Formats: sequence, structure tokens, C-alpha cells
Amino acid sequence: MNPEGPGPELDRLTWTEVRDAIARDAGVIIPVGATEQHGYHLPLSTDVVLAHALALAVAEQADVLVAPALAYGYRSRPLSGGGQGFPGTISLSASTLIAVLSEVLGELIRHGFRRLAVVNWHYENENFVYEAAWLAHERASRSDARILVFENPGGEPSDEVMRALFADEFPGWAAEHAAILETSLMLHLAPDLVRMDRAVDDEAPRRPGYDIVPPPDDLVARSGTLWKATQATASKGELAWAEIVRTVTDELMSEFATGDPDTR
Amino acid sequence: MNPEGPGPELDRLTWTEVRDAIARDAGVIIPVGATEQHGYHLPLSTDVVLAHALALAVAEQADVLVAPALAYGYRSRPLSGGGQGFPGTISLSASTLIAVLSEVLGELIRHGFRRLAVVNWHYENENFVYEAAWLAHERASRSDARILVFENPGGEPSDEVMRALFADEFPGWAAEHAAILETSLMLHLAPDLVRMDRAVDDEAPRRPGYDIVPPPDDLVARSGTLWKATQATASKGELAWAEIVRTVTDELMSEFATGDPDTR
Amino acid sequence: MNPEGPGPELDRLTWTEVRDAIARDAGVIIPVGATEQHGYHLPLSTDVVLAHALALAVAEQADVLVAPALAYGYRSRPLSGGGQGFPGTISLSASTLIAVLSEVLGELIRHGFRRLAVVNWHYENENFVYEAAWLAHERASRSDARILVFENPGGEPSDEVMRALFADEFPGWAAEHAAILETSLMLHLAPDLVRMDRAVDDEAPRRPGYDIVPPPDDLVARSGTLWKATQATASKGELAWAEIVRTVTDELMSEFATGDPDTR
Amino acid sequence: MNPEGPGPELDRLTWTEVRDAIARDAGVIIPVGATEQHGYHLPLSTDVVLAHALALAVAEQADVLVAPALAYGYRSRPLSGGGQGFPGTISLSASTLIAVLSEVLGELIRHGFRRLAVVNWHYENENFVYEAAWLAHERASRSDARILVFENPGGEPSDEVMRALFADEFPGWAAEHAAILETSLMLHLAPDLVRMDRAVDDEAPRRPGYDIVPPPDDLVARSGTLWKATQATASKGELAWAEIVRTVTDELMSEFATGDPDTR
Amino acid sequence: MNPEGPGPELDRLTWTEVRDAIARDAGVIIPVGATEQHGYHLPLSTDVVLAHALALAVAEQADVLVAPALAYGYRSRPLSGGGQGFPGTISLSASTLIAVLSEVLGELIRHGFRRLAVVNWHYENENFVYEAAWLAHERASRSDARILVFENPGGEPSDEVMRALFADEFPGWAAEHAAILETSLMLHLAPDLVRMDRAVDDEAPRRPGYDIVPPPDDLVARSGTLWKATQATASKGELAWAEIVRTVTDELMSEFATGDPDTR
Amino acid sequence: MNPEGPGPELDRLTWTEVRDAIARDAGVIIPVGATEQHGYHLPLSTDVVLAHALALAVAEQADVLVAPALAYGYRSRPLSGGGQGFPGTISLSASTLIAVLSEVLGELIRHGFRRLAVVNWHYENENFVYEAAWLAHERASRSDARILVFENPGGEPSDEVMRALFADEFPGWAAEHAAILETSLMLHLAPDLVRMDRAVDDEAPRRPGYDIVPPPDDLVARSGTLWKATQATASKGELAWAEIVRTVTDELMSEFATGDPDTR
Repeated sequence: MNPEGPGPELDRLTWTEVRDAIARDAGVIIPVGATEQHGYHLPLSTDVVLAHALALAVAEQADVLVAPALAYGYRSRPLSGGGQGFPGTISLSASTLIAVLSEVLGELIRHGFRRLAVVNWHYENENFVYEAAWLAHERASRSDARILVFENPGGEPSDEVMRALFADEFPGWAAEHAAILETSLMLHLAPDLVRMDRAVDDEAPRRPGYDIVPPPDDLVARSGTLWKATQATASKGELAWAEIVRTVTDELMSEFATGDPDTR
Repeated sequence: MNPEGPGPELDRLTWTEVRDAIARDAGVIIPVGATEQHGYHLPLSTDVVLAHALALAVAEQADVLVAPALAYGYRSRPLSGGGQGFPGTISLSASTLIAVLSEVLGELIRHGFRRLAVVNWHYENENFVYEAAWLAHERASRSDARILVFENPGGEPSDEVMRALFADEFPGWAAEHAAILETSLMLHLAPDLVRMDRAVDDEAPRRPGYDIVPPPDDLVARSGTLWKATQATASKGELAWAEIVRTVTDELMSEFATGDPDTR
Repeated sequence: MNPEGPGPELDRLTWTEVRDAIARDAGVIIPVGATEQHGYHLPLSTDVVLAHALALAVAEQADVLVAPALAYGYRSRPLSGGGQGFPGTISLSASTLIAVLSEVLGELIRHGFRRLAVVNWHYENENFVYEAAWLAHERASRSDARILVFENPGGEPSDEVMRALFADEFPGWAAEHAAILETSLMLHLAPDLVRMDRAVDDEAPRRPGYDIVPPPDDLVARSGTLWKATQATASKGELAWAEIVRTVTDELMSEFATGDPDTR
Repeated sequence: MNPEGPGPELDRLTWTEVRDAIARDAGVIIPVGATEQHGYHLPLSTDVVLAHALALAVAEQADVLVAPALAYGYRSRPLSGGGQGFPGTISLSASTLIAVLSEVLGELIRHGFRRLAVVNWHYENENFVYEAAWLAHERASRSDARILVFENPGGEPSDEVMRALFADEFPGWAAEHAAILETSLMLHLAPDLVRMDRAVDDEAPRRPGYDIVPPPDDLVARSGTLWKATQATASKGELAWAEIVRTVTDELMSEFATGDPDTR
Repeated sequence: MNPEGPGPELDRLTWTEVRDAIARDAGVIIPVGATEQHGYHLPLSTDVVLAHALALAVAEQADVLVAPALAYGYRSRPLSGGGQGFPGTISLSASTLIAVLSEVLGELIRHGFRRLAVVNWHYENENFVYEAAWLAHERASRSDARILVFENPGGEPSDEVMRALFADEFPGWAAEHAAILETSLMLHLAPDLVRMDRAVDDEAPRRPGYDIVPPPDDLVARSGTLWKATQATASKGELAWAEIVRTVTDELMSEFATGDPDTR
Repeated sequence: MNPEGPGPELDRLTWTEVRDAIARDAGVIIPVGATEQHGYHLPLSTDVVLAHALALAVAEQADVLVAPALAYGYRSRPLSGGGQGFPGTISLSASTLIAVLSEVLGELIRHGFRRLAVVNWHYENENFVYEAAWLAHERASRSDARILVFENPGGEPSDEVMRALFADEFPGWAAEHAAILETSLMLHLAPDLVRMDRAVDDEAPRRPGYDIVPPPDDLVARSGTLWKATQATASKGELAWAEIVRTVTDELMSEFATGDPDTR
């Protein structure tokens, strides 16, 4: 947290304010999401909203800026996002996603940021965001920057949160798309974007342990909700969110506090 | 304009709402900006704010959705944006910018949009956004989509607006960076993002008719403002904005009204 | 299974034998592994050996050919493979891995194979192999091919197998690198490649829920074994292998049996 | 100018002559053009002829070599070159044009040239040639090379020249394709390549301030001449050419005279 | 041969003349060379001069146009061109050379040319020009175009020519760089570009049957001439040239005469 | 040869054994082949089998490791491999082959290997493997590594071997595909993979000195054997193999013995 500053959103700052942030060794977070269907009741922006909100929440306690979020992510997969067939799901190829994120990271490193973090909220972006971090590091002329890669932030909730969210019916994280957790979080964080009256419980007719290209129809939940959305509540969201924010904030602050990043 | 709808921002919609928009042959605009220094007084987001605001203003009158804006643009050049040296200017390479935009266009075409527009507000993105549109068209399996490419929307103001903005001192559009027009527009559209007390008049010591790589110091205006920012006012912005919005709206509606797009 | 045939390994066949296999609508599996350190006691080929053995085992019961395995995989990550620092770990970038696999799939589809499967045994290849399948499908001029993508074959063992392998100490799959499962499988399948006398139990000093680039030392298990290798036995390997083979064989045969693949 | 030398065309020299030129810190110009329709009366080579002639004219006064011209440029656009539809217009994609030019620049820098210039004569190449220069600079292991990028050489003629060429009817530079200026210059420089008897005055039925992909017919001038070619004369060409050559020569000599290029 | 036409050089034509050539099913040749050292006595353009001259000579007898030559080729190798170390040798990477040539071929096919030929005169371009032809074919939407790929035109001279050129001392084609054949051809075709007084006989100290990267000094002939240049004469060149032209012309005319090209 | 070691195959070693090999400055060979038709009687793996066997044979005498072979090579060409049309011929594009090999070389250099060799057995891979070596060298941060590129190992047999193989009927190396030499070598090295009863003598109806894309039927030998396979014997193979192994071993040991590789 930088109480004197004009807020953590990098793009709302002037260049002199960014210069000052670098000078005091502030960190910077890049939220990464997707533009992807989230059932009848959640907006296409759900992953971006959550990634961005998480970065801002961390920035309330840590001295980090928040760079403009990447609103387009990797292709939606049927078993974790419904797949590419839903109108409005707008995705990038792997190579383009990697290129965008690695270049943004590279620019931040070039300007002198040494404490960087990628906060991802889109299952399908995993590994691609890691490769982006790797390439940015490999190409950087400076070697004292460290990039934290949160591919699945807050991905291991406490028993308490698990119980509150799923009782005894946890379907696995992949299927938790537009379902209890995401809907609850959105009810807590951005209720005006949720049409709770349209929420349904749904699931794909079949969920094999492998994937199929092109996806056959029976791997796709017709509504785009891959599990039970109707059980979501704002209070469940509040509970889960508090833990996620606390976990990620603690992790990030702990990493960023440890003196100088490693050099290669 | 789609008065019954939930607003034009595509990412705030659900997938069924996008499906319905496609079914009624709605258009879609992709705003393209940059994260680039804009002097002591304007935020790094200036180009995104303006591109996005323009798309939304058009959407008040035309039945178009507005896709998530591209917040990262091509490298800033000294004579039109101050150059890459200012902290906070975060740019993409040509190939990556082209890839992102062409893939986003391609996804929209894949879902069935036939009336697309790119609204760019960053001088350095010119030609790259055209190539993106070309590639999206070339790769599309459907051929009935038409892409309008506004590289410099409202780029030929009326004499009235020119006089109001520049009196007799028009420096050329390239130099109009973080200066009278952009500052006036931001004062009109997003005054909370403008630190008008910090605005200065400035210019590069030298403005040759060619460019130099790497840029020597005397091509760079020290403040990042390439011309006179102090002469900006909200009322100048209001006047110019009204004309820009009207021009682009008329152009877009006229194109989109002409029956089916050409097929190749 | 094709009892009259000369064996399932595609590269040991002549072209006329492949032609005949295509004519009878045989399937084809591409094993994908890595050349990656596996502790003091397992060879760098471990992932290839296992992926290849699995494909051959499936081919004993299903009419599928086995294409030459991809011996080089994506970069090793500290928390799932020890990372890139161990001599002998030879990795590809994301874009190259995707390119190789998508082109091999594309060639098989071009020749007329319609039932394809990727069998991956390297955690870090996930998502990249999916993108390869997607690109191969997207670029194919024929649309009646279906690609099964086994990113984590046999990834949900039965309780019986879990108990046999881990008793009460399951460290999560990522950490199960060069540890109980892989060592047991190698003792069962390729005992001459295992130096069991050198096996150790080890783990990274720290296993955060995120990753760090460049990897700090305390994320790396010094031996390259990320968990307990000494508890491995050939009989545990036999038990687990039987289940994995049965599961993947059933899945593949079931998919390939369902009439014609979907067309896009 | 190097009066003792064998002429400025690099490719007509032997390698020892190039070695000597580098030793005396000579400059080098890369002319960049296009193979693009230029109406009924001008050859497809018009842009290459003019770019090359300009480089040679500069080399009469400055100690610069002229590298082989790039004969293929970026895709022709309807409003500035007639578009891709005219037989004989042979264009490169953005990525390929950037790659060729950046590699040629990179080779020249590798050999020790420190004073480089790109002289472009094809409107549609703008920004792409800049990116090529940027990439060549970024990738160079030496940092004392400076690249001048003339995207639009002589682009601001004196009032005298403007009056001589256009009287009161200047259509804007984009439309000045295969029209008064280019035809006059070709009549002056390469009259044997001009079929003046076929020259026509023409224009696109419509010239909006934006572009459209794919281009509709009414954006394309049927003849390929975008403005008035019949008003061209060799004497107008001579007048304009003298000024263009003088301007570019002065600019280049002034830049190259200023001690050592900046280092990054 | 098209006796009524304005000459075969495509870039000296207008677009209507190219249109007419396509309408009568004329062929088109793309000469491909290099900008590469050729000893003390031959210009860097030697490969381009020869490739271009060959294309023009063929065009005297066959109805083919000659497209602008590619002046930049693949990296020079020590054992066939002296290597990358000689000042003035300006080379492209494999991927860029492939991209340029495949796009130029693609454009010609797009306009309707069905009889295309690549005439290469640079040993190191082999295979790369083939890949370019393959990609152009693969990407073309029309399938009735046929591309002849002359990687080594006239590469098997008659015994008579071999005896005249080399007597009993043929060093192999790779070493015939800037030596007897090339010097003789240049003396015949472009004597003003040859400094015969500077010609030397030379060879690399060592010529192994493999290559080494980076090249050690003893693989490089100090002069850049890889064999005996002093034995070259214009009359030897005339003899060899006549045979090369006759061979290639016959081959091309025979291929282009055989009805419609194959369709895929 | 490293008599105390566990064998030369890198992927059968543990990482500590590779570490030790690097410490003693061992070399490393990457075999490169293809998956390509070889007539009615030889397996698709022929090129890989031969490249791998050659590397292992060298390793019996030199202290080199053998990395996993590249089993997929560049596209088969009609006049040297029968072309892409034969089922089972699975090829990579030029760019992908270059990428894989250059990255594998790069990884080996990164770990500290300084004596590297590429042993290729697939005519069509020529030049591409050279480019891979060049790129690996260019990108390496260390500069003391040397890469030997055997594009055509043992490519100039002694007169004795030539006579034994071909008597007076040598068809040129390109045509020696799946014919006397390769069949003889396979009979010597891997007789269980040869169906000698199916061997035929064959040739393409036409073998011009240029290539054609797409390949017309009369350039393709129907059987996939481009010359006389029936004349092959194991004893011819033994004779030729002994010479090839001796030649390559001598060359490699001689190069690797010469103190430190050159630095750039």
C-alpha cells in the first residue's frame, strides 16, 4: 500500500508517478483473465473482473501497482470453461497470449520494476502464463527481476471455506466454472453484473479424464454453467474472497520482502 | 442503439445476449489504444480512455456492441508519443499487436458478426491495425464480414473546430500528443484523471521530417507533452468531441446500413 | 489389436502397411514425454519410456499404431520436475513443442487417420499438447478426424492404488516426480534403467502454491527427486500400471468405437 | 561522395571495397519500394525506381553506399495505392517486410556500418520500416549504429513546388498515387518507362476517412491512378526532384556529420 | 517469347500488361540470388546478375515474365561461399528467405499465373526455395498452378563444357565459387563488373566433408575465391552459358507446354 | 569412448552422469532422421535407425554421448525420398525442424557441452540442420561451443566401396533412396526390420534436374524405391558401414581433439 499515492492502477497514473514507484522499488501485478461465457447469469468479463479485483485487493496492503488487465485469454476448453462454441467467448491462440504477456512483462522489467506478479484467473491460461514469464526473464537484459506466477491464486481453500462453498459435493476445480465459487464471488464483488434469476445448476453430460478435439456435444454443458450456480450466495463469496485475498497478499508480501530477488 | 438491451459493453453481457446481438446482425467495435506517457498531467490510459469513450458514444446511436479495448499498443515514437523511454509506456511489438487484434477480429467473425469496426486512438498503431484486419479477413472461413478500420477517427476536423482548438498555431497531428486536443477531450470526458495544474507547454528541441533509431535526446520533449497543453479547456474538448462522435457515428451507420457487406 | 500385423510401432512398418492400417480405420497414438532429470536413480528418458510403454500396452488390445514418441518436452518446472537447472534436462519452448506435435498430428490426418490420440507423460506439457491438437484440427482440410488428448493418463487412481502407493502420505501429483509412482512403474517396466541403490527421499525446501521465475534455490529439491523414491517397489508399479493401462485402454476403445467422429 | 570510388552501389562492389568503405565510416542507404500498380501509364516498379534514384542522388554528394533495393513492399491499400486487386501488384505481409528489412539492417550493422538510412517510397510501408529499424537496433550486439528512417522523404515540399505541382487542387498525399508528382518525377527520371499517352485523370468514387476490409469497389479508382496524371510534366518533375534530393541530402549529411551516433 | 510485348521484365510493365499476360497464360520466373562476396574481382551482385540474366535469356524464347529478383539470399557458408565474415555479404535467415519467396509466389498465383518458375543461383538457397514453393502451393486457394524449382540450373554440364572449363581439375560445384565458371560467365555477360586484374587462384586451407559452426579460420579461403579464378575467360563463359540457357529453356518450355498443370 | 560409463545414450543416464560427462568435456551427438517411406521392404524408421546407429558406432570410440534422435524430418521430396504422398511419411515444415534442432542444441550448450555434432541421415534435411546449428550458436550466451554438422556423413565413399555397391551403375545419391546402399546397411544393422522378399528395383519415370510443386505423378517411383533394392546384401552393407563409421569417427575425433574450440 502506498497511502500517499494516487491509487494503484498504473494506467491512471502519469509517467512521473510510475517513475517514482520504480524508484521506491514498488511491485507491479498484471491481472490476466479471459472473455469467456459464464453461463446464463454471469458476464463474459467474469475472469477479468475477478483477476483485477484480486490485484486491487492485494494493492490495498502491498506497495504494488496494477497494470492494465489482459482481457483476452487462451481458448476455452469444454471441461473447464464450456469451450469455444459459445457466442462471446473470444480467445487468443497460445502463441499470441504468450507473446502479449511476455512483452508486457518485458517492458515493465525494462523500466526497472524488479518485483512482478502475474495474477491469473482462467484455468486454461495455465502454463502459457508461465512460459510468458520465462521468456520475459530470458530476454531481459537485466537479471534482478523476479516474477511471481499465480496460475491458480488461492487454489487450496481452507476446510472451512470448502465446507461453506461445497458442503460435500465438490466437483473439482475445473468444473467449478460459473458455478458456486465464481457466482458467489461475483455476488460479493460485482452484484450488478450478476443475473441471479437466470442462474441454473447444470453439468456436462459426460466429463472424461481426457479431452477431445473437436469437442463432441456431450462434453459441453448446454447452459455454460458446469456445476451448481444456484447455491451461490454473496456471503459465501465474501468468506472465500477474504481468504483468497489474505493468502495471495501474504504470499506476495512475503516474497517481495525478501531482500533483493535472485540474480541469474 | 439497442434500447432494450443491457448496455453495449460486450464483456458485461452474458453469452445469450451476445448470441441475440449476432442474430439481429448487430455490429461490434474494438477500441484500440495504448499504455503510453501523456505528459505530467494526463494518465497513461489516455488513448484507451478516448478510444473506449468514442466506441461507447457511437453505441448510443448505433446497434453495436463494444468489445474489451486493447490497452497495449505499438511502441511509442519520439515525434508522436515521446518514445519508449518514459517509465510506464508499455508497448507491444508490431507482430504481437497484429496477432492480438487479428485473432480478436477472427473470433468475432467466427461467431457470426458481419459488421465490425476497429476504432484506434494511438498514432503509432496505424498500418498495424490495418494488417490485423486484413489477416482476419484472409483467414476467415466466412467471407461476408466487413471490417471498418478507423485509424485516425475524426481526423479532419471542421475549420470551426480547428480554429477553436489551435487558433493559428496547429503543430500537425503527430505533435498533438498530450497537448491541446487530447487534454481538452480528457477534461471533458474524464476530468478526474487530469492533473491540469501540472500541465505544461513543451515541444521536442528538434522535429525532423524523418525518424532516428535509437532516438537521440533532442527528439524527445522532456515533459512528454509534445505541444501546448495549457491551452486546453473542457469546452474545447466538448466541441471537438461532439464533432468526432458525430462524424464517426455517421460513417459507421452509413456503412453498416448498406445491405449486406461485399463478399470476396 | 491387430493380431495378424507386424506390430503396432508405426515406424517399424512399411508404407504399405500404414496404408492398410488407414484403410481399416485403425487409430494412432503419439506418445509425448520429455528428456528431464528424474533424480539420482531414474534415467532422463523416464517420461518417454512411460508414455511409450503406455501406448504399446493400449495397442495390445486396440487396433492402433504407435507413432514415434516426442522425446523432448516443455521446460521442466521446479515444483513438478526440478526445473531447468539439472544437466541433461533438454527442453523445448512452448511454441516449438506445439509446432512439432501439431504438424505430426496434421500429417497423420492428411494421410487419412481419423482416430488419433496423444498420450502425454510430462506434467509440464499440459495445455501445450491441447493447443497442438486444436491447431492440427483447425488447419486440417478434412474434418472427420477426432483427437483424444490424454494430458494426465490414469490421473485418478482408485483408492486401492492410492493406498498401495502412498499410504497416508500423498504429496499431490506435481510432487510425485521421480518418486513413488514413477520409480515403481520403472521398476516394473524397465528395471535395468533404475539404479535403485541411489534412490533417495527428498523434497524442495519450499513448495508454494505459485511459481517464481527465475526459480530461487529453495524451490528446488537438490537430488531432483521431489518426494519419497525409496518406498517404490516393482509390485506397487505393477499394480498401478495395470490400472492405468486398463483405464486408458477402455477410454480409448470406447471413444474409437463410437461410429464416425463428429464433423465440424 | 567518394570521388575515387567505383560508384555507390554496394552490390556492384567487391567485398574489399565494402571493407574499405566501412573503415572510412561511410554510410549506407537501403531503398525500399514496392511492386505495385501505378495506373495505365507507369510501371509496377515506380516506387522502387524513385527510392533507388533518390538514394543514388544522395550518394552523389554524401559518402554513402546504396544497398540493393527492396522491390517488394507491404500490401497496397485502395485509398493510397489502388489495393491488392490489380494484376502485378505483388506484396508482402507486414511480418515478412519487417523481417527482411530488419535482417538486412542487422547484417550491415554486424559488418560495422554505423550510419544507416532507410529511404522508403511507398506510403503503405510506413511504420513497418520503423519497426524493422527498431528490431535491428534492439538485436544488434553493437550499439553505436544509428538508423535514419525516411518514411516519406521530401514529404513537405515548399510552397513553390506545391504550387507548381498542384496549383490549387492538392488531393492529399495518399491520393497522389500514379498522379501528378509521381508521373512528373518518372518523366524526369525514367521517361522511357512512362506511357504518357495512356495517362488519365481518375479518382476513387469514394474516399472515406477510414478504410474497409475487404475493400468495396467504390473505394478503388478503376484505372489505378488516384488523381490527375495528365497534368504531369517532366519539368514539374525536375523542379520537385531537385528539392526532394536537396532536402534529403541535407538531412542525411547533417545527421551523419554529428560526431559519433548516440549509444544506448 | 512475346514478340509484340514491351519486354519480359514484369516490373517495367503496367498492370494492364500483366493482366494481359495472365490472360494468355504466360509464365513467370522469379530469379533468386544473394548479396555475397565473390573474391577480389567479382561484385557482390554476382549471383543476382546470373540468376536474372538466365531468366531474361529464357524469356527470349518462352512466353514468360521475369519478376523482380530476390537480391538477398541465405547465409553464405564457408565451403561454398566463403561464409558470413566477408564485409558486404548480407544474408537472410532461413525463415525470412522462405517467407519472402513463398509470399511472392503466392501473390503471383493469386493473380492467376499458373506456370511459375524459381531460378536460383546461390548454392546455400537450396531446400529453402523448395520449402517456399511448397508453402505457396499449400496456402494457395487455387490448385492449378505449378511451380518449377530450379535450385541448381544447368547443374550437369556436358562433358564438352566440363572439359573446356576445368580440364582435369574439377573441384566440385560447392568450391566453384567466384572461380572458373562464375568468373567466365561474368566476363561473358557483365564484363564491366569484373576486375580481372585482381582475380586470384585460392582455396580454403581445409575442405572437410562436413561443416563447422562457428566456422574456424582454416575453412575460409582468404580471398573469397574458393578455386581458380585466373583460368576464367569470356569464351569459356560464352560456351557454358549457351548450354545452360538452352538446357533451362528447353526444360521450362517442355514443362509449360504440357497442357494444364496437375491439380492436387 | 568412456569405458567406465553406463553407455553413451544420454537419455538412459541420470542427470549426475550427464553432469560428469560435461565436467570431463565429453562431446554429444544428435542423430537426425525422418519418418519416411522406404519402399515395400524397409521400415519408415530407416533414416532414424541409420543416424542413430552411426552415432552409437562413433560413441564406441569417442567420448561422446548420444542424445535422443529427432525422428521427424523435413518433407520428403519426390526425387530423393518419393515425396509426401506415401502413407506413413510424416514430416515437419522447415521452420519447425529448425526450431526443434536449434533448441536442443541450445539446451546442450547451456548445460556446458562444448563439442557437439549433428549427424543427419535424410537428404531433405540438408541446409535446415545447418541453420539450426547457426541459430543455436548465435543465440548461445557462451561462445566456446563448436557444432559439427554432418549433413551427408560418409558421403564420398572410396572407389572400392562404390564398386562393391554399384558396379558401374551409380544413379547419384539422391536416387539412392531405399535402394542398394540403404537396404544393404539395414540388412547389416537391423535385418529383422527388412522384408527382403518384398524388395524391388524401381525408379521414377522421369528424373529432371529441377523439382516441381506439386509433384506430378511421373516424378514418383510407384514402389517408393528410387533405384535397385534387390542388389543389396548384408555384406555390401557391412563393407560400406565400416568405412562410413571409420570416416565419421576419425573426422569427429580429429575435430574434438584440437584443443579448445574457436571463440567468436
